[in-house]
Amino acid sequence: MDDIVVDIGGTQLRAALYPPQGLEPRVFKAIPTSGEKPAIDRLYDLIESIWPVDARVRRIALAAPGALNPTTGITYTIPNIPNWNELHLLELVQNRFKVEVRLGNDANLAALGEWRYGAGVGHHNLIYLTVSTGLGGGIIVNDQLLVGSSGLAAEVGHITVLPGGPMCGCGFLGHLEAMSSGTGIANYVKRELAAGRQSLFDQNNATIDARAIAAAAKQGDALSIEAFNQAGEFLGRAIADLLHLFNPTIVILGGSVIKAGELIMAPVRRSLHASVISHSYLDGFTLTTAKLGDKVVLVGALALARG
Amino acid sequence: MDDIVVDIGGTQLRAALYPPQGLEPRVFKAIPTSGEKPAIDRLYDLIESIWPVDARVRRIALAAPGALNPTTGITYTIPNIPNWNELHLLELVQNRFKVEVRLGNDANLAALGEWRYGAGVGHHNLIYLTVSTGLGGGIIVNDQLLVGSSGLAAEVGHITVLPGGPMCGCGFLGHLEAMSSGTGIANYVKRELAAGRQSLFDQNNATIDARAIAAAAKQGDALSIEAFNQAGEFLGRAIADLLHLFNPTIVILGGSVIKAGELIMAPVRRSLHASVISHSYLDGFTLTTAKLGDKVVLVGALALARG
Repeated sequence: MDDIVVDIGGTQLRAALYPPQGLEPRVFKAIPTSGEKPAIDRLYDLIESIWPVDARVRRIALAAPGALNPTTGITYTIPNIPNWNELHLLELVQNRFKVEVRLGNDANLAALGEWRYGAGVGHHNLIYLTVSTGLGGGIIVNDQLLVGSSGLAAEVGHITVLPGGPMCGCGFLGHLEAMSSGTGIANYVKRELAAGRQSLFDQNNATIDARAIAAAAKQGDALSIEAFNQAGEFLGRAIADLLHLFNPTIVILGGSVIKAGELIMAPVRRSLHASVISHSYLDGFTLTTAKLGDKVVLVGALALARG
Repeated sequence: MDDIVVDIGGTQLRAALYPPQGLEPRVFKAIPTSGEKPAIDRLYDLIESIWPVDARVRRIALAAPGALNPTTGITYTIPNIPNWNELHLLELVQNRFKVEVRLGNDANLAALGEWRYGAGVGHHNLIYLTVSTGLGGGIIVNDQLLVGSSGLAAEVGHITVLPGGPMCGCGFLGHLEAMSSGTGIANYVKRELAAGRQSLFDQNNATIDARAIAAAAKQGDALSIEAFNQAGEFLGRAIADLLHLFNPTIVILGGSVIKAGELIMAPVRRSLHASVISHSYLDGFTLTTAKLGDKVVLVGALALARG
């Protein structure tokens, strides 16, 4: 029987119907998360719209951002979907469609996807980090997704890497996300410009984001190169910390910031190698980039549905 | 049948013979690690000396400090036992005594001990930290000891908590061990005295260690109180990071520094509560002190033997 998976995002709901084998969906459909109806009704409509003609669905797997409990199926806080605090999401969808429903955090499920079908196949201890506007992650320990006691584990973006450092999206200071995410890179450039630094950007340029900074760096802009170096240095050191804690055989980096290539990867590698306390951590270890691209969360939800 | 367990330390080898049930050893014996014979022969002699009269032993479990691989049974580096680099310890002891031998890192096994027989009974996700001269730890994920791909996991003392901070025993800067261990506390006081700070200690006092500083703090010495506050602040923040990563239901603190009581626990709690990104991490969560005392590593090795 087929499985339906949905990647619930703050701006888009993306759903796919997958056959029992393979990674090619029979149907894929995306709609905006907000509209006239509440998000939950839009989710129901979307699932119905891709329901197979023969009416047979084995499971529905849902990926959602933010804090949620995969066991109880309750979402604590979902960014940009304000009415989903303390929502019994799993139960609601299960009652509506009368099939088994599974739920996971999107970054955690992306890790599960890369482990089952992507760059991490064959590894037993794996860390996946997604570095884009924010910074999230998922961790496989001994062939199991680490979810913790109430589903809140693997919040890699919110470890403190520079006490008293720049403010994170969550309001705390000096988190990894504040140093190494796309937002962190853009904020670094903006702070330096405000302090009078020269660069290809003029101070009032509203389009200063990680992508524009990567383009400027490739034109030789010193400040932009420095911004990626600093992001990479903190990210590499954090990866060393994760090696000391989890001793995985692979760390997989995904997300838009990683698309900057060597601009970010070179300082990450340099910093990682300079920060591990013993080279034993790097014996048989691979640092690599994600394989599944844009559909990583859908494929991860599929792994959850099939697992 | 009985089990034999040995806690291999840099200064002492401590061995015990345990009956199949209970935590009271039939025999306990400790000898210095160094002497005329090499440490490995001293270990053999110690095990032989407590071997039961009926000659029946089910398993031997060894706990050792430093980096080792519990699966291959090879020790990479053992502090203060210089000839044990790349030693096939498990194989050697197994060939000598012809019974099954198991091996684990001492801090990891202490975690296992507190989980099976101590403060962590009934928990499925647990973190144990030992704070004394150094700072080590062990982590239980989903009822399993986290050892990682080659046994190097849970090196909690060597995560970077203050980039560019004081030097750690391992030679790197700003690790948690450098900030919050007994050595870190003593070094803080020494640095401040060298910079001209006034305190109950005079500058050339050779006996400045965490215990003396705790005593001075209890007499109201401002510098000593400050040293514990700083250690507790970094430790509490690191525990918050561990909550974000592992989402455990309990963190257990052991080791000589924790014996300072509220002097260290109050700033740890304050900092932990101020640093978690969501109070969901503290719902149903317990921060507590270790129960098993001095024999925690032996009891942990016993849990490994019985497990």
